[in-house]
Amino acid sequence: MREQLIESTRELLWERGYVGTSPKAIQQRSGAGQGSMYHHFRGKPDLALAAITRSAEEMRARAEAELSGPGSPIRRITAYLSRERDALRGCPVGRLTQDPDVMADPELRRPVEETFSWLRARLAAVLAEARAGGELAAGPDPAATATALVAVLQGGYVLARAAADAEVYAQAVDGALGLLAGHVR
Amino acid sequence: MREQLIESTRELLWERGYVGTSPKAIQQRSGAGQGSMYHHFRGKPDLALAAITRSAEEMRARAEAELSGPGSPIRRITAYLSRERDALRGCPVGRLTQDPDVMADPELRRPVEETFSWLRARLAAVLAEARAGGELAAGPDPAATATALVAVLQGGYVLARAAADAEVYAQAVDGALGLLAGHVR
Repeated sequence: MREQLIESTRELLWERGYVGTSPKAIQQRSGAGQGSMYHHFRGKPDLALAAITRSAEEMRARAEAELSGPGSPIRRITAYLSRERDALRGCPVGRLTQDPDVMADPELRRPVEETFSWLRARLAAVLAEARAGGELAAGPDPAATATALVAVLQGGYVLARAAADAEVYAQAVDGALGLLAGHVR
Repeated sequence: MREQLIESTRELLWERGYVGTSPKAIQQRSGAGQGSMYHHFRGKPDLALAAITRSAEEMRARAEAELSGPGSPIRRITAYLSRERDALRGCPVGRLTQDPDVMADPELRRPVEETFSWLRARLAAVLAEARAGGELAAGPDPAATATALVAVLQGGYVLARAAADAEVYAQAVDGALGLLAGHVR
């Protein structure tokens, strides 16, 4: 039931945002009674933190699997950037930056901040590895390049939603890979 | 008073989203009476459309001034990307893609869609101009590159908000300029 409560909260946060996710809606969606909910969690903030932490952990685990996978550094970065994503649905962690209630609460914001901070640093390390191994030219700064590449994915979701067309997301990724290709030896 | 109603609606859409922007809140913020509001606008959707259209027009006019300004194509693109923006506040048009009520209404979504579609095409035209003039290498596809560059800005806002640090936005722009530089002759 704990598991069901977390999954229902993730869905509701996604669909309605923090303010629209009432304890009552969580109970209805999960089929948990009020007693069960307050047995497992202290309240809505506690449950939201568990739901957000779960999304952040999944995002990080998938990225880590690709960035530490087989192949050269540039091949791994390409695999990470090119992974198929549900572009119109958007990023479950990135979207939280537009939820004013999540951003205003330091505890709820922390997993969002940590995930993107980790991702940018991890990607920068793989770019530095590519440069050290001679696969990437010395020009582009690894940290700035990493931030730009993560931004392309997050902004790709914005542009795909604006156009109601997942192809726009794919085009943003293609554009980033094309720019990167000019620095690959 | 029409002007004041539009500006108040823009502020409220920004702060509270469409669902949180009640006709009563608009009247209070603008100092307009109910009669005055319904004299100028048919209702909240009509007023929201005027507010969103205003934001879209401003965004487009600023971009057009930079992209058709003085200097070579790459210099104009650099000016456009490097313009100082309120990174933690975010893009008034891009943020609407996260407002479910705006995205669900074809009339309200249209200015958002048209603005980004225009921006990507305009940037692609300047990139094509750079390529035709020999300033940009033949490698990167102008349309895909343009989409990636617009995505960097939109994603830069997401990352800056996640980190609560406007410097992250600046780093994303630096990274994009660094990647582009490898293709400039």
